[in-house]
Amino acid sequence: MYATVMHGPGDVRNERVEDPTILKPTDAIIKLSATCICGSDLWPYRGLQPQDGPTHMGHEYCGVVVEVGSEVRTIKPGQFVVGSFCLSDNTCPHCRYGFQSSCVSREFMTGAQAPYARVPLADGTLVASDEMPDADMIPHMLATSDVLGTGWYGAVAANVREGGTVVVVGDGAVGLMGVMAANQLGAGRIIAMSRHETRSNLAREFGATEIVEERGEDGIGRIMDLTDGVGADSVIEAVGMEQSMQQAMGVCRPGGSIGYVGVPHGVNFDGQQLFFRQQRMLGGPAPVRRFLPDLIDRVLQGKIQPGKVFDLTLPIAEVAEGYKAMDERRAIKTMLKVEE
Amino acid sequence: MYATVMHGPGDVRNERVEDPTILKPTDAIIKLSATCICGSDLWPYRGLQPQDGPTHMGHEYCGVVVEVGSEVRTIKPGQFVVGSFCLSDNTCPHCRYGFQSSCVSREFMTGAQAPYARVPLADGTLVASDEMPDADMIPHMLATSDVLGTGWYGAVAANVREGGTVVVVGDGAVGLMGVMAANQLGAGRIIAMSRHETRSNLAREFGATEIVEERGEDGIGRIMDLTDGVGADSVIEAVGMEQSMQQAMGVCRPGGSIGYVGVPHGVNFDGQQLFFRQQRMLGGPAPVRRFLPDLIDRVLQGKIQPGKVFDLTLPIAEVAEGYKAMDERRAIKTMLKVEE
Repeated sequence: MYATVMHGPGDVRNERVEDPTILKPTDAIIKLSATCICGSDLWPYRGLQPQDGPTHMGHEYCGVVVEVGSEVRTIKPGQFVVGSFCLSDNTCPHCRYGFQSSCVSREFMTGAQAPYARVPLADGTLVASDEMPDADMIPHMLATSDVLGTGWYGAVAANVREGGTVVVVGDGAVGLMGVMAANQLGAGRIIAMSRHETRSNLAREFGATEIVEERGEDGIGRIMDLTDGVGADSVIEAVGMEQSMQQAMGVCRPGGSIGYVGVPHGVNFDGQQLFFRQQRMLGGPAPVRRFLPDLIDRVLQGKIQPGKVFDLTLPIAEVAEGYKAMDERRAIKTMLKVEE
Repeated sequence: MYATVMHGPGDVRNERVEDPTILKPTDAIIKLSATCICGSDLWPYRGLQPQDGPTHMGHEYCGVVVEVGSEVRTIKPGQFVVGSFCLSDNTCPHCRYGFQSSCVSREFMTGAQAPYARVPLADGTLVASDEMPDADMIPHMLATSDVLGTGWYGAVAANVREGGTVVVVGDGAVGLMGVMAANQLGAGRIIAMSRHETRSNLAREFGATEIVEERGEDGIGRIMDLTDGVGADSVIEAVGMEQSMQQAMGVCRPGGSIGYVGVPHGVNFDGQQLFFRQQRMLGGPAPVRRFLPDLIDRVLQGKIQPGKVFDLTLPIAEVAEGYKAMDERRAIKTMLKVEE
């Protein structure tokens, strides 16, 4: 098959690779219905995260099971499935505690920007839908796999409550999904920090009640004004840079919560500063598996349309352009059509 | 009156000072029933926290109101009162959110290692008991003011739940009170890290189910063994040093919570390490005022005897020996008798 391989910073190719096969008895092979490019794929693309040689890219996926290993019990060929970028057995103590992204058997998905992919730990990782979704549901189902699941975790980690005030730092795809999650979880006020019209419009569509364009100290000042000097109950940090983390901390009230879902790059905390700020902090790779059944339900019931976050759709053969468009911020998130 | 003044590291004196007077209409003057020395008083005593000249020491207190300012409404002369080391108006948004230690009018108590003390923001800060407590209740009431309140906050911040597994890092007075709090909050298992017999015995008396003597990597390994490799649901960090924080993080399960109540000194966090550990963290100066009515009730009903943490009692004139004994770890916590 032809799939996506990153050879180095800025060098992503659609090239011939081996078809995936069952390597372990707990694996499944799925035929992708669609796949996409993640904001986190841009870290190595931009040379900000070292790689060991050419890498098969892609960890967001949904599709139809074509084959399962001999120990797979619940997942069956023919089923439509969605899985998380974190592969988990869903039975270990961490999984049962709702933190499947710290599963004792955890692996990270890879190779999903392709027509077919191998999914390890299939029983634990994959969630099957009762019926085969219509074609127009595919983008929304695909979004639950990571980008929505991660934004959702950000909102849960930030302790979003009915009627609460939420700030979302970062208007990338995850931040926008954080807005949607906060809205679904009943937030009373959702302030999105965004200075790009396309993104702030989408944020409003997803439930943002206010947009703050300013950044840094100005952005903090604006939000403190909007909250009568109190700050937000919940802050979703969806970037992972020093400046964005400082913004998140600057607008969170004492006793409030920060859910940080942007993988921190070059972020350090001073213990005493953190102490006196008195903010509850929880981050980490999202345990999407915990939320997947609920998210799939919400999608199939038409309550949410997270696939709207894909503002560029390309055939997988043009994956290089998909990365470039996201890198240059011409696209929020690129969906890749997979055809045989 | 004769009160406690720190002139520099290691130099604490009981010396003649001005009697406190009402300076603001929201002040009260109390006659101390007893007072004590805090572990945090040892930071400047050890030269680890700079001071601006001679300082009136003491921020844990209970006693009888002798005078109130013209704007004090609820507190009256003759009442027995306990207050927090954080002075708060108890009406601002942060106070109403339960974080009185971040009150917009916050001040820190000082000058309570004395026969009389001025308590600013009296209405917001002081909690009066219905009756005058018996003399044997005084140590327990005094303990609610800071050391128990702080241990309690540590347990609440660490999200201690009915049946949960709790680790307490630090066998100082606050750590021991953290054990008591975890026990009162229904923890199923309380593992105290302690290598001092007096302290570990007290920990057991307060509810610790297991004692781990090892420290550092060995201590972490021991606790991971005890929890079948899972780690604790809740960790109370009651020291504030790099090593103790690493221990706390090393024994907390993914998705678990760390309440850190030792003021961090020289502690830094790497953002990416914190992210992948996926532990909920909340620290800060304890909002003792939130817990005080409940803690006073528990004391007066005889449910808890937190005053047992005082293993040395001295007349206030011998305060210097009180500091020395704590500095040399001969005493866990020194109570100071205040007589006219």
